[in-house]
Amino acid sequence: MMNGTVYLVGAGPGDPGLLTLRGAECLGLADVVLFDYLVNPEILGHANPQADLVALGRPHSGRSFTPEEIVDRMLAEAGAGRTVVRLKGGDPSVFGRCADETGALRDAGIPYEIVPGITSGLATAAYCEIPLTQQDDASAVALVTGRERNCKQESCLDYDALAVFPGTLVFYMGVGRAKVWSTALMQRGKSPDTPVGIVQWCSRGHQRFVRCTLSTVVETIALEELRPPSVFVVGEVVARAPEESWFARRQGAASGAASPETVSWPTLVPAGVPGSD
Amino acid sequence: MMNGTVYLVGAGPGDPGLLTLRGAECLGLADVVLFDYLVNPEILGHANPQADLVALGRPHSGRSFTPEEIVDRMLAEAGAGRTVVRLKGGDPSVFGRCADETGALRDAGIPYEIVPGITSGLATAAYCEIPLTQQDDASAVALVTGRERNCKQESCLDYDALAVFPGTLVFYMGVGRAKVWSTALMQRGKSPDTPVGIVQWCSRGHQRFVRCTLSTVVETIALEELRPPSVFVVGEVVARAPEESWFARRQGAASGAASPETVSWPTLVPAGVPGSD
Repeated sequence: MMNGTVYLVGAGPGDPGLLTLRGAECLGLADVVLFDYLVNPEILGHANPQADLVALGRPHSGRSFTPEEIVDRMLAEAGAGRTVVRLKGGDPSVFGRCADETGALRDAGIPYEIVPGITSGLATAAYCEIPLTQQDDASAVALVTGRERNCKQESCLDYDALAVFPGTLVFYMGVGRAKVWSTALMQRGKSPDTPVGIVQWCSRGHQRFVRCTLSTVVETIALEELRPPSVFVVGEVVARAPEESWFARRQGAASGAASPETVSWPTLVPAGVPGSD
Repeated sequence: MMNGTVYLVGAGPGDPGLLTLRGAECLGLADVVLFDYLVNPEILGHANPQADLVALGRPHSGRSFTPEEIVDRMLAEAGAGRTVVRLKGGDPSVFGRCADETGALRDAGIPYEIVPGITSGLATAAYCEIPLTQQDDASAVALVTGRERNCKQESCLDYDALAVFPGTLVFYMGVGRAKVWSTALMQRGKSPDTPVGIVQWCSRGHQRFVRCTLSTVVETIALEELRPPSVFVVGEVVARAPEESWFARRQGAASGAASPETVSWPTLVPAGVPGSD
């Protein structure tokens, strides 16, 4: 039996139009789609109608896959000759553990392709019009994870260096540890008045863009009940974003835009034993 | 006369499959496409066949548009009621002066939309399998411009801060000033042995991925005759890229892959007076 190919596809930040042409093509080829729960369900509409759609964890579902289980599932499906799409939110290579998964595929001799996606941190520039690399304020932009793995001490991140970074900082997965990173930056001399933009559900119809400062990040999260998926843009460029972006204007015009609560999930096959169909 | 809409579309790094669905859709709507010369000509195949395709500068063509001329052209076309796509390589918001262009459109009351693209610096993760945010080595990745505008002194970049950045550095437009940035990083204490990956024409059939170290960047550019468009990935993660990525393997398998010299350009309309047709 020939091994199937695994396509690691970035779904982009949420707007289904931000999927790449190649990503859509791969979904059409798939026998099975293993998708992260944050992926916009509309994007699954590009999948071959015969494909099994497997959700890898879902909030409050009581079932989520460990990274090891995901790899095992990919290996089992591809080893059974099936074409697999591993669909991840954003870009699989940006804090997506892509190399762990491709390493296992490589070791197993399973062919694969990586299809990048638009990463949400940079999509804030388009959808909130935050000029991330505006020349006067920022000749650089850094993407930083707010959630560190395998961290023995309080933090592995070098906040001394981050506090003086000559550009815009974008924190991913930063809700849970917002107090840690915002306090650390201020302790290292970053101004408490540094503008911060919190963007939840970037590029989705129910996107929220909340402005605060470094000193008010934690209270703003609480007050506005902000939850993942959110990215935090830290820097003077946030103040340069127009009051209402082209996208916010469109959101305002669209009556009855979907709220997080009304997003519907597609019918899914149970995440059962691989190759058991 | 109603103003036309301007779509600022990121074409991605070069592989035509990396255009977004929305980007392709916008091209299909366009009356006129103003495209940067580095955009893969194949992507223009998504344009409405009736659309005017206007190249904004082309190497050795003797004619290139200034940023002001590009804005003027957009305003004139949209003001004449035409739908405009402004097609840029990569992501318009990453060192693309997007905010300058949208600011002018906003002031003129012309509706616009920004369609992000895959930025080449991050596409190196997919196409060369450089694990940019590999947790052990890098909890962060910074995108930095190697070409600074309006810089009175030797450099506006704070190399003290960049040299200690706790993650991977990716320099855009870094060929011309490679000596400046590589020397500055070493003078501030970054190891001369830091692995560097130079990726030219990322994701195109004629992509080149050349490895060196921070101390040998300049001689490597000369020896390998590397020219723009190239990005420079600086960090330990470069050493973790496999000898041959999935894409390099595919390049090796494709006989007669296009070389830069054999890329053909589409038939273009002259970059003449806007709205004169």
